[in-house]
Amino acid sequence: MAVVESREWYLASYAPEGVPTSDHLKLRTVTLSLDSIPERHVVLETLFISVEPYLRSRVTGREDGLYTPQFNLNEVLSTFGVGRVIRSKDSDYVEGDIVVSPLTPFAEYGVVPSQLLTRKIDPNDGIPLPEYISLLGVPGFAAWVGIEVIADPKPGSNVFISAAAGAVGMYAGQLAKLRGCRVIGSTGSDEKVRLLKEEFGYDDAFNYHTETDFDAALSNYFPNGIDVYLDNVGGKMLEAVLNHVNKNAKIPLCGMISGYNKVWTEREGVRNLLNLIGKEVNMQGFMVGSYLHRFGDFAKDMESHLKQGKIGSKLKIFHGIETFLESLGSLFTSSNVGKVIVQVK
Amino acid sequence: MAVVESREWYLASYAPEGVPTSDHLKLRTVTLSLDSIPERHVVLETLFISVEPYLRSRVTGREDGLYTPQFNLNEVLSTFGVGRVIRSKDSDYVEGDIVVSPLTPFAEYGVVPSQLLTRKIDPNDGIPLPEYISLLGVPGFAAWVGIEVIADPKPGSNVFISAAAGAVGMYAGQLAKLRGCRVIGSTGSDEKVRLLKEEFGYDDAFNYHTETDFDAALSNYFPNGIDVYLDNVGGKMLEAVLNHVNKNAKIPLCGMISGYNKVWTEREGVRNLLNLIGKEVNMQGFMVGSYLHRFGDFAKDMESHLKQGKIGSKLKIFHGIETFLESLGSLFTSSNVGKVIVQVK
Repeated sequence: MAVVESREWYLASYAPEGVPTSDHLKLRTVTLSLDSIPERHVVLETLFISVEPYLRSRVTGREDGLYTPQFNLNEVLSTFGVGRVIRSKDSDYVEGDIVVSPLTPFAEYGVVPSQLLTRKIDPNDGIPLPEYISLLGVPGFAAWVGIEVIADPKPGSNVFISAAAGAVGMYAGQLAKLRGCRVIGSTGSDEKVRLLKEEFGYDDAFNYHTETDFDAALSNYFPNGIDVYLDNVGGKMLEAVLNHVNKNAKIPLCGMISGYNKVWTEREGVRNLLNLIGKEVNMQGFMVGSYLHRFGDFAKDMESHLKQGKIGSKLKIFHGIETFLESLGSLFTSSNVGKVIVQVK
Repeated sequence: MAVVESREWYLASYAPEGVPTSDHLKLRTVTLSLDSIPERHVVLETLFISVEPYLRSRVTGREDGLYTPQFNLNEVLSTFGVGRVIRSKDSDYVEGDIVVSPLTPFAEYGVVPSQLLTRKIDPNDGIPLPEYISLLGVPGFAAWVGIEVIADPKPGSNVFISAAAGAVGMYAGQLAKLRGCRVIGSTGSDEKVRLLKEEFGYDDAFNYHTETDFDAALSNYFPNGIDVYLDNVGGKMLEAVLNHVNKNAKIPLCGMISGYNKVWTEREGVRNLLNLIGKEVNMQGFMVGSYLHRFGDFAKDMESHLKQGKIGSKLKIFHGIETFLESLGSLFTSSNVGKVIVQVK
């Protein structure tokens, strides 16, 4: 009977606050039988796996029902990934197929129901495999929903993007530029400010660690106010933005990384929501899962931009499944640039 | 030359914090010539004038540009009112016409450009004059925009309304009931709880002074969560609501009276905006001035409801122009019930 040894990350204990550590997430080795899988399942050899900020909120141990559900203790983590089929009990898949799944186990090998394979990749299409979980994955899709569907900005609109050098931010800014907007980003280092301006075509950017008076910074970068704010951070930056919004501004809420490592009662409260009334602002929270009916439009758009060289990615690839904890931690520091991926094989 | 003596309320000094007092708003007597008014102006004898919470935000002295503009020092306050034309230099108006104007001076008599007269009232239509600044005025229109245009709830939706016995709240709840929703309100006294249930047909209501654990109260009144929250208060109540929102909940932001007497940095911050993302909530600030193109639809709807006895008002009428300061203060206490109006004549 064919078996493989597989290392996998599982939840050992919940982490209500702070960045999860090896106390919470642990690596173990299991033995997987390749021959005894159920019908309509495949065994995947994991190639690339996406390290997502929302994973943080799934290991808090607080099932408040208002964000994504918690992983169970002892459960193997899972998220978007690219894998190779090495065994198949589904006639739609053969060994060697390269596939994408939103529930790829954070493991070297995993058994996955074939209905959870969302895409079979044509290896001749010229798109690097990691882009299927970055530009063509959740971050690219989140940026596209936020800018194209929710904000829908006019040419010349003033667009502000926080965590602008992060996985969603980099794409969102580029999409807004393609729409003819003036785009400014905030980010956590001077190197990333340079990246935003030189590689991603942002009109300008600032380092929130050195320009700590956000109100002054926004006065400076947005003399004509803000029409669209794609919020990835929440807290103090959102509050500052609400003092600079224009009439009928739109604020797609994509994530609030400033709050993920705190229980909600410890988060920075936003005190000036009254400004939403005076300026008749629309604030829209969104989860990409609710826009799957638009995934085809998104993929067509993005593949076209990519092939025409109109949009680019910055990927931060960690090598080896053992790097997951480090890669997850990097999301919550200013060191992270672009999309964080673990290359498993 | 015909003259009248007129008492009028003017802004003597700004009130950055707290409820405005006689230090800030003063009454003076002026003499008004009736014969020397400009072309296309009328002299109004003020009959009823609307006491609006937003007036508070116009006397803070902080022109932050994000809410309504400030009155100038020494300027006579103005707001929605019903008046009688006693002199006219516009052929569209004759002495005796009863008119509505959104910029009626807070005075016994005032000179008003005829282009600011928005409606001539037919005294035979059977609608009491004060309703033109209540059910058919700003509060009724705000309730209609919030419920009918922005929230647009389905029958059976769970609707929560704060400041529910206030001028906007009482109409909003009745409109939601007419749509077949389950409607719960929060208010500041047991008497008003009774009023909401017995007169305005709310399914239930609670007194936020006695049920001070808002989270527990909302768990109790909304076991199936909240689909629509018409927010009139902001602060802690909004925060509590965000822990009980359903998927795709809508939150029209109509006003935030809990914050009007504080500078914004002293207001209660809302710490759980992350819930807007998980539940994909839409929060929409609005000002009725942006919906004037719908005023005709609103007036038709409301007059129909009124004439069929499907909707009612509670008016708190103060008598005499000298009562304005007291009437304004009443908006910020729990004592206020329904729509506050000063009957000038």
